[in-house]
Amino acid sequence: MSNNDWHFIANKAKSLVNEAAQQIKKSLKNERIVEYKSNPNDLVTEMDKQIESFFDEEIKKEFPSHLILGEEGAGKEISTLDGTVWIIDPIDGTTNFVHQQRHFAISVGIYEDGVGKVGIIFDVMADELFMAVAGEGAFLNGVKLPSLNEAIVKEALIAVNSGWIIKDERLISLVRDCRGTRAYGAAAIEMASVCANRTDAYISLNLSPWDFAAGAILIKELGGKITTVEGNELNLLKPSSICVAKPGLYEQLQSHYFNRK
Amino acid sequence: MSNNDWHFIANKAKSLVNEAAQQIKKSLKNERIVEYKSNPNDLVTEMDKQIESFFDEEIKKEFPSHLILGEEGAGKEISTLDGTVWIIDPIDGTTNFVHQQRHFAISVGIYEDGVGKVGIIFDVMADELFMAVAGEGAFLNGVKLPSLNEAIVKEALIAVNSGWIIKDERLISLVRDCRGTRAYGAAAIEMASVCANRTDAYISLNLSPWDFAAGAILIKELGGKITTVEGNELNLLKPSSICVAKPGLYEQLQSHYFNRK
Repeated sequence: MSNNDWHFIANKAKSLVNEAAQQIKKSLKNERIVEYKSNPNDLVTEMDKQIESFFDEEIKKEFPSHLILGEEGAGKEISTLDGTVWIIDPIDGTTNFVHQQRHFAISVGIYEDGVGKVGIIFDVMADELFMAVAGEGAFLNGVKLPSLNEAIVKEALIAVNSGWIIKDERLISLVRDCRGTRAYGAAAIEMASVCANRTDAYISLNLSPWDFAAGAILIKELGGKITTVEGNELNLLKPSSICVAKPGLYEQLQSHYFNRK
Repeated sequence: MSNNDWHFIANKAKSLVNEAAQQIKKSLKNERIVEYKSNPNDLVTEMDKQIESFFDEEIKKEFPSHLILGEEGAGKEISTLDGTVWIIDPIDGTTNFVHQQRHFAISVGIYEDGVGKVGIIFDVMADELFMAVAGEGAFLNGVKLPSLNEAIVKEALIAVNSGWIIKDERLISLVRDCRGTRAYGAAAIEMASVCANRTDAYISLNLSPWDFAAGAILIKELGGKITTVEGNELNLLKPSSICVAKPGLYEQLQSHYFNRK
């Protein structure tokens, strides 16, 4: 696919994200119907489903050959990443959405034969749109973001959820050694925060592909690293742990905390 | 002191906070000089000092009989809360200020003979001003906040920093049982988040009076509870642990986690 095609696709994706954000903002004025998934930490709203259907229909209309992988069921049968695949989380941070009506994001990553091409994270209530087209830099609301600087653990702010810390000893020593931790409660926003140089790393022990597909493209575009916690390449077809970090800091996390010899 | 006097003082305090916020915003366009306090987690900037001096001078000019207790040294010799005392954190969340240039707040609590009268928390970059005059409700940007609803642990979002979780076993079981945790990295913002119904509780094992003086007034005004983690009344003259929570949830935290018989 030519660069022009990717610009066309990226612009279409951005329009869809903006339109979805408007629908979500409108819905926040109405009552929400909340369901429970497998456990009470996993709230899902009607809105989640509605937004995914919106993407599904619009993408199929415009790009009938593209495939879609999404949280609410679209394309769950996908077993390879051949061709062009949109990996979508219609509302990343559903708990925040329900509790706070803020700190949630729309996350769209578009891949060609498994290679990241377009990444968009939109923090809806903050009106912050993070966007990258591979090889052309990453932007926040149209302003080019600088490449990520080098960082070290003892001066790092690390985003990591307490739920993981109590389960994994490697994280206890990391929490002890770093400058501080943060937890905003939405994977896409945690990754966007690293992109914007607000935090230096983000660790999670279990995310789904739609949680990190867009963030991975943005992070790589800015010179950051993203792998599983154990340092393996991410597989976009299954759940995974995740280690996102600035250069230098990533290597330190791997050698001192996650892959000590 | 009559109610009218308190309105006059509250309005003056609000003006000073707004003016201080403008100074801070302006400074963010310039270079910052960062010092280190006793350890690298405790960053303090020139700005912190400048803003505290600003409050100090203005308050002494307008209310020469009032006392001031502040993070950067003003009134550190204060040994009683007799009379009218302003307890001020010029920049709560200095690490966020330095790393993120956001998620920090100005915190001003005014007490009369140890009783909270006026509480103001201003999240500077979000332009969110939380304000309460005792007995007259709490407001966010002029809009009255509803009283806090009852909450329970298993449906609660609890703000607590990972640094404490790795040090206190009581927090481990709480993290396991609640719906989720958050950490924004500034005590005043964590308390304002409970006021705005974005989180349900906030736990810290060590805060200074200027970190919680304003928040305590706001929380109580909304029907929330605030004590030490062990359930004792707060002492505004010394550092303390803190347990802030919605009604119902507070009692559950005390009986099931912090004061198990």
